[in-house]
Amino acid sequence: MFDEPIEKLVEYFRQLPGVGAKTAQRYAFYIIENSAEKANNFANAIKEVKEKVKLCSVCGNYSTQDICPICQKRNRKLICVVQEPKDIVSMEKVKSFDGVYHVLFGTISPLENRGPNDIKIKELLSRIENDKVEEVIMATNPDVEGDATAMYISKLLKPLGVKVTRLAQGISMGSDIEFADVVTLEKALEQRQEI
Amino acid sequence: MFDEPIEKLVEYFRQLPGVGAKTAQRYAFYIIENSAEKANNFANAIKEVKEKVKLCSVCGNYSTQDICPICQKRNRKLICVVQEPKDIVSMEKVKSFDGVYHVLFGTISPLENRGPNDIKIKELLSRIENDKVEEVIMATNPDVEGDATAMYISKLLKPLGVKVTRLAQGISMGSDIEFADVVTLEKALEQRQEI
Repeated sequence: MFDEPIEKLVEYFRQLPGVGAKTAQRYAFYIIENSAEKANNFANAIKEVKEKVKLCSVCGNYSTQDICPICQKRNRKLICVVQEPKDIVSMEKVKSFDGVYHVLFGTISPLENRGPNDIKIKELLSRIENDKVEEVIMATNPDVEGDATAMYISKLLKPLGVKVTRLAQGISMGSDIEFADVVTLEKALEQRQEI
Repeated sequence: MFDEPIEKLVEYFRQLPGVGAKTAQRYAFYIIENSAEKANNFANAIKEVKEKVKLCSVCGNYSTQDICPICQKRNRKLICVVQEPKDIVSMEKVKSFDGVYHVLFGTISPLENRGPNDIKIKELLSRIENDKVEEVIMATNPDVEGDATAMYISKLLKPLGVKVTRLAQGISMGSDIEFADVVTLEKALEQRQEI
C-alpha cells in the first residue's frame, strides 16, 4: 500500500503495545507531516534511552547511574518488593513512602516454568543481610501468581526476623460496591478496619 | 519521576496523536525492555522516512519517487480530489478505482482564514488542462468546509467542460437506521436510488 520506508515505520509502530494497523499509520503520518528536526530528535531519544538506561545494581529499577537516586537517598531498611520496574512508577506517586524498592522481574509461575531461581529472590536475601532490613512490603500484583510469590518470599524472610507485610486488598477508592467482584469484596471483608 | 533520557522519550511519544501520559510511558518502557537492535532499527526507520519520503510532484501523495506509482501507471483522465494524503490510503482500499488523485492539503475555510489560494487548486486546474481530464470526483469530507470546497471547485471546473461528481452521502453500510443522525438520513433520502 505504502512506499517501503513508510511501510517499515508503520510496522515498527505496530509493535508498540496496544497499537493496531490504523493507529500505527496515524503515528507514521504524524512523523511524515512534522519537521525533520523533530523526527531526528525523536529517533535520537530512542537510541539514547537504549544507550544510557541500565538497571540499578541494587534494586533493579531503570537508571542512568549504577545506583539509582532512590537507592542513594532513601531509607534502605524498608524495602517494597515489586514485579516490574514500571510498578515503581505507580508506587512513587504515593509521596509518603520513603523506603527503597526491589524489582523481582516476574513472579514464581509453575505454569510458565518459572521457579524461585528465575526471579531476583537471591538478590533480595543478600540485601536483607547487608542493609539490616526491618520491613519488606510485598507489592506484587493481587492475583494468583503475585499472591503465591508474596507467600513464598514471606516464608523465606520470617525466620530471618524481618517483618513482612502485603499491600491491603479491598475495594478501590471511588468505585461502586454494586460493581465490585466477589473476590474483591471477600478480601475487603476479611481485611476490614475498625473506625 | 524518571531519569532524563526516559523522560525525554516519554515526551516525544506524547506528541504522537491521541497519546496521553500513561500510553507514552508504556511505549517508552517497551523500548527500554526490548533489544538495542530493535530500538536502533526503529530510530533509523523514523529518520529514513523523513529523508526519503517526499510529495509526488503531480498529485501531492507521499512518495519516495518524484512521481508516485499511482500517477505513473493509472488513468490520468479521472482525478479523485482529497483533502490529505491519508485519505488516499482509504480510497485505495476500493480496488475498483483506477484513476489518479489530487491532494488539496486542506479545505477552503473562511473561519480559519484559508482561501482558495491556500490550497492546491491552481495545481488541479493545470492538471486538468495538461491531461485532458474528463471527470473529477470530489472526495473532500462530508462536512461544511469539505462541501463548500467541493462546490467551489465544481463551479470553477464546469465551464471547462469537465464532469464533476461528489461521493454519495447516506447511511453507512452495516449501521442502524435507528441510530443514524438526521442530516445523514436527509442526505440518504435526497440521494435515494431506484432499485
